[in-house]
Amino acid sequence: MSFQNPVFIPGPTNIPESLRKACDMPTIDHRSPLFGQILHPAREGVRKVLKSESAEVFIFPSTGTGGWETALSNTLSAGDKVLAARHGMFSDRWIDMCRRHGLDVQVVETPWGEGLPADRFEEILTKDKGHEIKAVLATHNETATGVKSDIAAVRRALDQAGHPAMLFVDGVSSIASIDFRFDAWKVDVAVAGSQKGFMLPAGLAIVGFSEKAMDATRTSTLPRTFFDVNDMAKGYKNNGYPYTPAVGLLNGLNQACGMLLQEGLENVFARHHRIAQGVRAAVGAWGLELCAVDPSVYSDTVSAVRTPAGFNATDIVTHAAHKYGVAFGVGLGEVAGKVFRIGHLGSLTDVMALSGIATAEMCMADLGLKIELGSGVAAAQDYYRGHAAVARKDAA
Amino acid sequence: MSFQNPVFIPGPTNIPESLRKACDMPTIDHRSPLFGQILHPAREGVRKVLKSESAEVFIFPSTGTGGWETALSNTLSAGDKVLAARHGMFSDRWIDMCRRHGLDVQVVETPWGEGLPADRFEEILTKDKGHEIKAVLATHNETATGVKSDIAAVRRALDQAGHPAMLFVDGVSSIASIDFRFDAWKVDVAVAGSQKGFMLPAGLAIVGFSEKAMDATRTSTLPRTFFDVNDMAKGYKNNGYPYTPAVGLLNGLNQACGMLLQEGLENVFARHHRIAQGVRAAVGAWGLELCAVDPSVYSDTVSAVRTPAGFNATDIVTHAAHKYGVAFGVGLGEVAGKVFRIGHLGSLTDVMALSGIATAEMCMADLGLKIELGSGVAAAQDYYRGHAAVARKDAA
Amino acid sequence: MSFQNPVFIPGPTNIPESLRKACDMPTIDHRSPLFGQILHPAREGVRKVLKSESAEVFIFPSTGTGGWETALSNTLSAGDKVLAARHGMFSDRWIDMCRRHGLDVQVVETPWGEGLPADRFEEILTKDKGHEIKAVLATHNETATGVKSDIAAVRRALDQAGHPAMLFVDGVSSIASIDFRFDAWKVDVAVAGSQKGFMLPAGLAIVGFSEKAMDATRTSTLPRTFFDVNDMAKGYKNNGYPYTPAVGLLNGLNQACGMLLQEGLENVFARHHRIAQGVRAAVGAWGLELCAVDPSVYSDTVSAVRTPAGFNATDIVTHAAHKYGVAFGVGLGEVAGKVFRIGHLGSLTDVMALSGIATAEMCMADLGLKIELGSGVAAAQDYYRGHAAVARKDAA
Amino acid sequence: MSFQNPVFIPGPTNIPESLRKACDMPTIDHRSPLFGQILHPAREGVRKVLKSESAEVFIFPSTGTGGWETALSNTLSAGDKVLAARHGMFSDRWIDMCRRHGLDVQVVETPWGEGLPADRFEEILTKDKGHEIKAVLATHNETATGVKSDIAAVRRALDQAGHPAMLFVDGVSSIASIDFRFDAWKVDVAVAGSQKGFMLPAGLAIVGFSEKAMDATRTSTLPRTFFDVNDMAKGYKNNGYPYTPAVGLLNGLNQACGMLLQEGLENVFARHHRIAQGVRAAVGAWGLELCAVDPSVYSDTVSAVRTPAGFNATDIVTHAAHKYGVAFGVGLGEVAGKVFRIGHLGSLTDVMALSGIATAEMCMADLGLKIELGSGVAAAQDYYRGHAAVARKDAA
Repeated sequence: MSFQNPVFIPGPTNIPESLRKACDMPTIDHRSPLFGQILHPAREGVRKVLKSESAEVFIFPSTGTGGWETALSNTLSAGDKVLAARHGMFSDRWIDMCRRHGLDVQVVETPWGEGLPADRFEEILTKDKGHEIKAVLATHNETATGVKSDIAAVRRALDQAGHPAMLFVDGVSSIASIDFRFDAWKVDVAVAGSQKGFMLPAGLAIVGFSEKAMDATRTSTLPRTFFDVNDMAKGYKNNGYPYTPAVGLLNGLNQACGMLLQEGLENVFARHHRIAQGVRAAVGAWGLELCAVDPSVYSDTVSAVRTPAGFNATDIVTHAAHKYGVAFGVGLGEVAGKVFRIGHLGSLTDVMALSGIATAEMCMADLGLKIELGSGVAAAQDYYRGHAAVARKDAA
Repeated sequence: MSFQNPVFIPGPTNIPESLRKACDMPTIDHRSPLFGQILHPAREGVRKVLKSESAEVFIFPSTGTGGWETALSNTLSAGDKVLAARHGMFSDRWIDMCRRHGLDVQVVETPWGEGLPADRFEEILTKDKGHEIKAVLATHNETATGVKSDIAAVRRALDQAGHPAMLFVDGVSSIASIDFRFDAWKVDVAVAGSQKGFMLPAGLAIVGFSEKAMDATRTSTLPRTFFDVNDMAKGYKNNGYPYTPAVGLLNGLNQACGMLLQEGLENVFARHHRIAQGVRAAVGAWGLELCAVDPSVYSDTVSAVRTPAGFNATDIVTHAAHKYGVAFGVGLGEVAGKVFRIGHLGSLTDVMALSGIATAEMCMADLGLKIELGSGVAAAQDYYRGHAAVARKDAA
Repeated sequence: MSFQNPVFIPGPTNIPESLRKACDMPTIDHRSPLFGQILHPAREGVRKVLKSESAEVFIFPSTGTGGWETALSNTLSAGDKVLAARHGMFSDRWIDMCRRHGLDVQVVETPWGEGLPADRFEEILTKDKGHEIKAVLATHNETATGVKSDIAAVRRALDQAGHPAMLFVDGVSSIASIDFRFDAWKVDVAVAGSQKGFMLPAGLAIVGFSEKAMDATRTSTLPRTFFDVNDMAKGYKNNGYPYTPAVGLLNGLNQACGMLLQEGLENVFARHHRIAQGVRAAVGAWGLELCAVDPSVYSDTVSAVRTPAGFNATDIVTHAAHKYGVAFGVGLGEVAGKVFRIGHLGSLTDVMALSGIATAEMCMADLGLKIELGSGVAAAQDYYRGHAAVARKDAA
Repeated sequence: MSFQNPVFIPGPTNIPESLRKACDMPTIDHRSPLFGQILHPAREGVRKVLKSESAEVFIFPSTGTGGWETALSNTLSAGDKVLAARHGMFSDRWIDMCRRHGLDVQVVETPWGEGLPADRFEEILTKDKGHEIKAVLATHNETATGVKSDIAAVRRALDQAGHPAMLFVDGVSSIASIDFRFDAWKVDVAVAGSQKGFMLPAGLAIVGFSEKAMDATRTSTLPRTFFDVNDMAKGYKNNGYPYTPAVGLLNGLNQACGMLLQEGLENVFARHHRIAQGVRAAVGAWGLELCAVDPSVYSDTVSAVRTPAGFNATDIVTHAAHKYGVAFGVGLGEVAGKVFRIGHLGSLTDVMALSGIATAEMCMADLGLKIELGSGVAAAQDYYRGHAAVARKDAA
């Protein structure tokens, strides 16, 4: 008996039936006009999900990591200075990538569990009178710690400092689940992936470029071919790609955007918030704490739950998989063994969330933690009962 | 967002991924040898699931109701006498069918919630010295009341009475989920459907005929063509059907039997018992009672839960569908409005069951019943923790 | 390597991708309102395909044979007289069914390859002053011989005779492929299946009943339960079924009707005619003849091709399957061994048809028939070039 | 009516039913042991398809172009010299990539239609006494011209010259369709994609690295992160990826390798050769010529067919798509407008190939070329009849 329980990893997420079918597509000629009928609406859909009027949207057969590389390699040159904070595994990896590509990263070390230090950014940017910093890297939602940062504050830091650096935002685990405002925040490059809020299998890096970022491609000298946005732009003008596109995933992306926009982005965000609040109510009922230090940074897509000192949180994940066939996320990097993670993004219902909470309870009890069975479930039920959207189940 | 939550109706059940794919088959020539490679193993698989060495298995593009009609119309003649008990909606319907086909049914009225009255059967059969009763109809598992009956006892009644009547068993909601012994119980016709323990979509009537039942086809004069087992048997000998078979469903049935036999029938039954025990623990924790009067008749595939007097149990089902997108079963016939039903058969995990229990709790609380949130979940968790099979998740 | 070539059996047909997906549906509660959103449009769609304003459409989890039984058992009583012609395997089987159900069939023996003898029907009906004949059975398209009959002429025969007998039409291999006019021809019961013009897997008997046929259900005494149209009608009024419906197939049927009506029925018929003309041009180029005696009875859904005397036509079918992985239809009954059949109904393109024609050529040459390779293909190409509809390939 | 005809583009190819299903996979935890059960057999399968005992196989969520970039960026440093021939669009693009990444490419201009100039390579390598050339780039099968080159000869050129340069082979449109010998030819990096011989959707770059190529990664200084093979190797050791893997495609790849190895690689190659021979027989019958100058370089995966001077070959492709719903490939680069391409790789039968040939004939006739209808089909039929493998159609 397999594949029956929902997954509670923070991506890839559970895939809705209709998107499974949209991706499972017979071969078409990707040089035929039919392909344009998939590509262009998909790009337009992403643009709307980014809340942008004018972002250039590029979709690579790759992953979020490829999206990071797209951002850097198209806009910067070896030796360029970038500013970033390290406050989780994914910001850490992006910093590492910068260094591999010969960039000079100024890292603001930030405790894991805290959000981006916009104040520190402002100080540093203000001091950078020569505008040597070419880009600020911001991880909107740290998947490792379950921390959502305030990108508007980072934008204000740039503006207060009167600094022209580009703003690159990793929105892999936020976009399409948590409010993201490409235009309002004057984001220059936004990076997303297919396998989180877009509810698709992994395999697409989805990026949005501002006009300023497109301008930067003209002077950037980092080598690039596969991730070259200008090659991609040229392909799009001819209804095509510079190489073979992942047609099925693009078809899925087109439909995913349609689903999200039909539900309404604010409703999508509210739904994620509701599910997350239930999970957090459960965590509180268990007497445990989140890795995220403060409600202002609680992520609506993933909760990293701290377990008591001396307890290996990873055991919960292993035990849940082995005994109950349920997948949670392990702690990564600095918080490895200290937290386990409950993903609650993408296509999830209150009812599914309750089954994850119930499973976590059983696991913790099995492993000797003092958790009252049903306590977290009851707290979440109480929240969901009061806030439930009316369920809708349409014919497929 | 649709189709995400499991269903908790007592069939059709949740369909495993691999069976979805087995049924979704491109067209093949059903007169080619390839078809035989699907048909014969499917029939052999069903025979093993029935625990029979020699039953003739017939599979019609139909439903369980068609299986009932197959049993009657192939073996009996207008005016023939049959013995049956009415103790639920499905036994009631089978009795009604007998009458429409001109049979003379002796009905033993039995309280809904009780099992088959083997003692009464024995009395009646013993008195029937002329052996006018040609068949005894037995509903193994009354889906309407969540009552499992003792077929071995019915067999003993026949044997004690030294009566030659055939024994027809409706195993639609028991076979492949609850122990069923075609040979040991000397069943003459067993009736199943694809959409319950076999975990497939509805669309197949699956029947097993004993040699005695096959003999009865020679003298039976009830009209039949579509459901004629001898036409079917002749077709099978030529690797075919008397008309167009439902090839995809047969392919699914073949694989379903493979899954069941690989897990081991006793393990399948134990799994259903475990899931059911958790549900029953929840019902107890809620302070509610089952429609089934006694643990000896508790069904491991469906629980009909009585709600307090004055409360319309159907509201739970409507509310669950509307607010939480979860499907339970309504009460039918005599117990309409008095019970709601939780189906727990087919492809279900402990974790899925917990989400159903949690949903039922929320619904009952929403509708004003005094149900402590989390109480049923905790009772089920406690049971599942102690009895969980180790989860297995194989590559598809 | 499997399942790649199209099938050329006269049903089940090749299934379009979108219908495969529509049928492959997760379990829903068939007692929920969602089911009504599938059922009612499906029935309405069938009604339009039948070209009827008022036919009562019933859809059984069964096959065309079940549809025949539905027609007879709901409207007639044992001993009733019916009139039918035997001119192929399927008319023969329906006649046989009548006899099994106790009806008194007056059979007009008609050479296989000819159409229905409307003149003989008129004579017989005119002589039946007492109106003992209760129903006339008409096979619109004899799948065994590739003969399409003139149902309008049968209707005229009834009208000329002033005879009130009901008109039952087997449209299994015509409806949704060849013009069928329920209302204009005053058909009383039309019988179809899912696996032909509706392009779905086998598993549904689809029937339309006129008001007169519905009236006949009140006096008919043939036993019926599974196929009882009044039980079905009662179910439909409550958005349900008297038993478990085949939800996925119904969902597919709904979409199939949508596809057909969007293309336009006249366009669908024209497409079938075009494909068939190409096949017939090939047969002519081979120097062979059809079983159908005259162009006026050529079927647009299946061609039965006569092979030279002394040659076993079935060898072509066996050889094609074995050597080339392509399925044709064998001859049945009186024309077994004398014809092989090329099905060209449902979802088929000119290009697919050409591959079937090319395969038939290779097989015949392999087996020693004097067939010039490419000759039939060239004749069909010539026709298709001049008559091709513009191909359309929309995003799924 | 859509998606029914096979495609005849030189990739992505027609996808077998079983691989469609293998790719269409529900979400699993890619950090769970289950993932390793997919990943490791897939890599091992690829290794066998490469005919290698020891190649390190890496699979990126990307395309063949990403595979090229993987080869270069992991093994070379800016300013490094590489040797390559330009004799088609794909060799041209790889050369262009080298330059973008700061490599110094010595290009041997070679007429489009010819194979790799192994003699010229040997001369150049022999003269390169200082061994400045670090790598030789070889396009095994030029998809643009339908030219297969002799990689063994390129290896001999290196060996004769006693030159230590690495040998990088683009096998995107050859591997898994045409004989490829990683070990025998001492290939250092082989590049393939999922969408050609592996019969899967696009989305995977599949590369094999020799020990020598792995050694080169230690000194290479080209920037890389997404395509870093050492990160990937480290991930594999822990059953994982450095980022989110495309699990469904990997599952498909595992099954694709299983299919290929079960058929037997030599049988797979023979099948491609047989299909290709039929297509080439048709081209000859049309009185046309291939772009490939000589039978020794005829590709078994794609045929580029030259049309008469003054005729725009691209019109055939447009016309075929518009009128017949069939996809062929256009000419690219230097041969744009001069050739159209018939892809015949991956999952294709003789019967499907005949439908492509028949369509091409109709198109050419429609557009005024003097092509006798049926002539190419007859030539191909003649070939296929004499060489047909026995068709096999197993239960899915």
